[in-house]
Amino acid sequence: MQLEAIFHRPKQNWSFAYDPETIYLRIQTKRGDVERVQVLAADKYAFEATRSLIGMVRFASNDRFDFWEIPVKPPYKRLTYAFVLHARGQCTYMTERGFQSEAPADATGLFEFPYINRADVFTPPSWVKDAVFYQIFPERFANGDPSNDPAEVEPWGGEPGRSNFFGGDLQGVIDHVDHLEKLGVNAIYFTPVFEATTNHKYDTRDYMKVDPHFGGNEALKRLVEVCHARGIRVLLDAVFNHCGATFEPFLDVKANGTLSPYAGWFHIRSFPLEVQDGIPTYDTFAFEPIMPKLNTEHPEVRSYLLNVARYWIEEIGIDGWRLDVANEVDHAFWREFRKVVKAAKPDAYILGEIWHDSMMWLQGDQFDAVMNYPFTDAVLDFFTRGRLDGARFADAIGTIMAQYPKQVGEAAFNLLDSHDTPRLLTLCGGDKRKMKLAAVFQFSYMGTPCIYYGDEIGLDGGQDPGCRKCMEWDEAKQDVDLLAFYRRLISIRRSHRVLRDGGFRFLQAEPNDQRLIYERFDGESRIVIAMNAGPLSRTVHVPLPEGDWLELYENGSLSSDGGDPLQVLLPAYGFRIWKKV
Amino acid sequence: MQLEAIFHRPKQNWSFAYDPETIYLRIQTKRGDVERVQVLAADKYAFEATRSLIGMVRFASNDRFDFWEIPVKPPYKRLTYAFVLHARGQCTYMTERGFQSEAPADATGLFEFPYINRADVFTPPSWVKDAVFYQIFPERFANGDPSNDPAEVEPWGGEPGRSNFFGGDLQGVIDHVDHLEKLGVNAIYFTPVFEATTNHKYDTRDYMKVDPHFGGNEALKRLVEVCHARGIRVLLDAVFNHCGATFEPFLDVKANGTLSPYAGWFHIRSFPLEVQDGIPTYDTFAFEPIMPKLNTEHPEVRSYLLNVARYWIEEIGIDGWRLDVANEVDHAFWREFRKVVKAAKPDAYILGEIWHDSMMWLQGDQFDAVMNYPFTDAVLDFFTRGRLDGARFADAIGTIMAQYPKQVGEAAFNLLDSHDTPRLLTLCGGDKRKMKLAAVFQFSYMGTPCIYYGDEIGLDGGQDPGCRKCMEWDEAKQDVDLLAFYRRLISIRRSHRVLRDGGFRFLQAEPNDQRLIYERFDGESRIVIAMNAGPLSRTVHVPLPEGDWLELYENGSLSSDGGDPLQVLLPAYGFRIWKKV
Repeated sequence: MQLEAIFHRPKQNWSFAYDPETIYLRIQTKRGDVERVQVLAADKYAFEATRSLIGMVRFASNDRFDFWEIPVKPPYKRLTYAFVLHARGQCTYMTERGFQSEAPADATGLFEFPYINRADVFTPPSWVKDAVFYQIFPERFANGDPSNDPAEVEPWGGEPGRSNFFGGDLQGVIDHVDHLEKLGVNAIYFTPVFEATTNHKYDTRDYMKVDPHFGGNEALKRLVEVCHARGIRVLLDAVFNHCGATFEPFLDVKANGTLSPYAGWFHIRSFPLEVQDGIPTYDTFAFEPIMPKLNTEHPEVRSYLLNVARYWIEEIGIDGWRLDVANEVDHAFWREFRKVVKAAKPDAYILGEIWHDSMMWLQGDQFDAVMNYPFTDAVLDFFTRGRLDGARFADAIGTIMAQYPKQVGEAAFNLLDSHDTPRLLTLCGGDKRKMKLAAVFQFSYMGTPCIYYGDEIGLDGGQDPGCRKCMEWDEAKQDVDLLAFYRRLISIRRSHRVLRDGGFRFLQAEPNDQRLIYERFDGESRIVIAMNAGPLSRTVHVPLPEGDWLELYENGSLSSDGGDPLQVLLPAYGFRIWKKV
Repeated sequence: MQLEAIFHRPKQNWSFAYDPETIYLRIQTKRGDVERVQVLAADKYAFEATRSLIGMVRFASNDRFDFWEIPVKPPYKRLTYAFVLHARGQCTYMTERGFQSEAPADATGLFEFPYINRADVFTPPSWVKDAVFYQIFPERFANGDPSNDPAEVEPWGGEPGRSNFFGGDLQGVIDHVDHLEKLGVNAIYFTPVFEATTNHKYDTRDYMKVDPHFGGNEALKRLVEVCHARGIRVLLDAVFNHCGATFEPFLDVKANGTLSPYAGWFHIRSFPLEVQDGIPTYDTFAFEPIMPKLNTEHPEVRSYLLNVARYWIEEIGIDGWRLDVANEVDHAFWREFRKVVKAAKPDAYILGEIWHDSMMWLQGDQFDAVMNYPFTDAVLDFFTRGRLDGARFADAIGTIMAQYPKQVGEAAFNLLDSHDTPRLLTLCGGDKRKMKLAAVFQFSYMGTPCIYYGDEIGLDGGQDPGCRKCMEWDEAKQDVDLLAFYRRLISIRRSHRVLRDGGFRFLQAEPNDQRLIYERFDGESRIVIAMNAGPLSRTVHVPLPEGDWLELYENGSLSSDGGDPLQVLLPAYGFRIWKKV
């Protein structure tokens, strides 16, 4: 047994409470090395009377490891445990103290989950699992009120540049809420709407004012009302890592130096505030002079920003915040932020922008989710870039599944593109078949899918600014086939709970093969999905258990006798979604 | 290269800020498998201009792994990094995405330490490193005021039972503060002093009153004044996981059931509150009916306990809290607790009682330290139980060093016994030589040593209640040799900073060998310690660098030419402590 490969450390993704009664335990072993893993579990204060041996399930794998999991419901909310590893006739016990060949006689040295305290159980808002998000970059979605256009506005549909304006505003969103409702989305994430100098508004001038070019605070209020009336939730972008260079406190420090009452609001290396050889004398986002980093440890800054967070929830009724550059702000700030936000609205959604491993922010005390870019990468590498075969794609997904607690996966924000990446259609080289297949995976996987505005009608575009084109509202120029596809996909997801919170398991994912078969399952339902992500027609052999099955996308039906796998010829980039009736 | 054995995950003990300028990076490889590890480090927003390659140091090992470490001072407080692993002519790069053979061309997919925010830097109070603690069980230390004795008091020095009383009180401590000062300790940890029914007082009746049998609040106030006047800090025991069955709110629930305004203060499974088949109908500590678990998630309970925490700091001036059964209380409560305590006294010490892996409590937002029982186990297994040889002892210490951030090790509470374990002398089978040697290791290792009352004068005793004997104040019955030893040992530690915050490294620790050589070092000083933990005289070969050396315990001196190791015959359980002059 490869002992050096075995890993378990209490908490994080390795032992966590899923709800107030249930602890999940997990362990990692070298791939293919261990045949069976059990948990020896007990209450430490009544070891003999409560001890039991429970088999674990291999719930995910990657190229190096198998990951095993089991839920346990300890009667007194306390759990002491060891792992029992079986391989090639050998049996090894793993406790907190290491490995041993004899069964532990008592609780000494075993691992512990000391007590399930409700306050520590990470519980994302329950609506998030059921959400289908739509991301809007307001300057480019629709111009609903030309009277508030910037002076330098260009005609709608022109070439997007780094600094030009097309007049998009919140009235434009209100005007097109029918489109969103028909599409089937039930939540919108807006990139920043507060007053700022740029078209992307990530350089905030005033956190208490919606940008006048977007229609001001009144427009946001109406927008939220209209959305809520349609059952659509609204998430705003909290740019709290840094402000803009036109933010009053920053201007004051610029003018008054150390004498400014706001001198402590920033991370200043030396006065005066200026740029020397491309490096500002104050900390910024990246080295961007117009984005001075806020000192979120300063009590006044904290209080100011927390008030902003509360204000827009209480006054306007927004349903949560997406947090820009979330990992460069202190954890202490985000812990307070969570308290303030959840006090104002207990089911508000807190979504961090982190492109990396985010375990430290996803333990219940800070965020509900992060933008799941590792998922984005895996899906694009397999479906669009051809960098992974089926086996390695399953490895990448297995890594993601094992990396976080179960509830994190269920509420992850699964995007395939955004204002910070090329558009999906462009990544697919314009091949809609690839795009659709990637979307099928996105919408049939765990977590919350998000569509970047315009993807659904065939908008394309490369890296920023290309990906920030104006939305196409001329129906003659919209891709109606793609739009119908997205509507259908969303409808399938929204009408099948198992796609939103069931288990996920690969049934087939092989080396040098672009075919995939996987399933979603819970106590009542089962959905099996087969896809061919290659450029040639291929037969798939689908092991459908006995019973009647309905193909959800094209509404075909069939019966399986549960014997030989079903043989189906899938065209290039084809897929089938079967639901057990 | 054994890739499955390699581990790094950002934060916790693997990447942490040690101070506002310095990030420590660590990685684990299979023992003996990798020859050299480097870090490729850069600022992610200026990758090319800032990239550098830095060699890591193998700072600890255990039976399975080598642990590598390096401090990095990124100029803009942000760090993106990968590891470069060298073995047998091969070179492999490890990024967040896995292993690759080519050097990363940019920051994509690298690990990140996004920004050093001061608020997140874990900084235990600076005095803790310099503290020598003394633990007092007040009922058994000294009876300074017979007028407050319990009615059933027994003569001092009788056989300790689970429930008898000997009249110890706080005046007794005041009376003997000279003893503590002469011993050289500068901090006392008291087991609980608040009103309760038992001799150990872990069943609190009233958190706002010092037990009348201990002399009441006035006695504590005087005690703290007397201690502070001698430069001795005072830590009290916060029993917040559970109260006593005589706590007013619990009595109220017992009497009034669901109608009690305190019904939400506890975790009640069913009314009435009673014990059925040995199991209380309410959650308790273990299954102990007289210790009902408090619902620390209830706002009134939180507010009550936080007020207790603040009150004794503000009113009486205590210097910190030891937290009983700390791991069964919610993390959310301890985060608030830390804020309240540090607001009342910024350098207050927060010490959790956790016998297990405590990483989740030692990240800067909760505790400053835990009672370091894994250290206790390792030292006892080597020095007293003969369960480990030198090599395996070094493995155990290596595990502890690698398990936590550097600053955690420096402020760990290193005890060898307590009111919850047999006494050190008894664990040594009465062999004072073994006891002394274990203490030499304790006092020459990183972290804060603690002496359990009476160990220094030869008190013995087995598991509770044996370990809670009355202190011996008859000087004729005290072990004066042991007392002189402890005074000397404490004096050596207190007069050599390198023993308190220098690095630690084994120079020799071999299989089937009870000899050890290790050193403490910093930029200025070096202390080399050699010991023979076996029952026969043995020669040790000590590689002393060139220069003059002073033996600190017996004041011998010698010169080394830095050539052949110094040969020294150490008696059974003998030791030498050399300091470079």
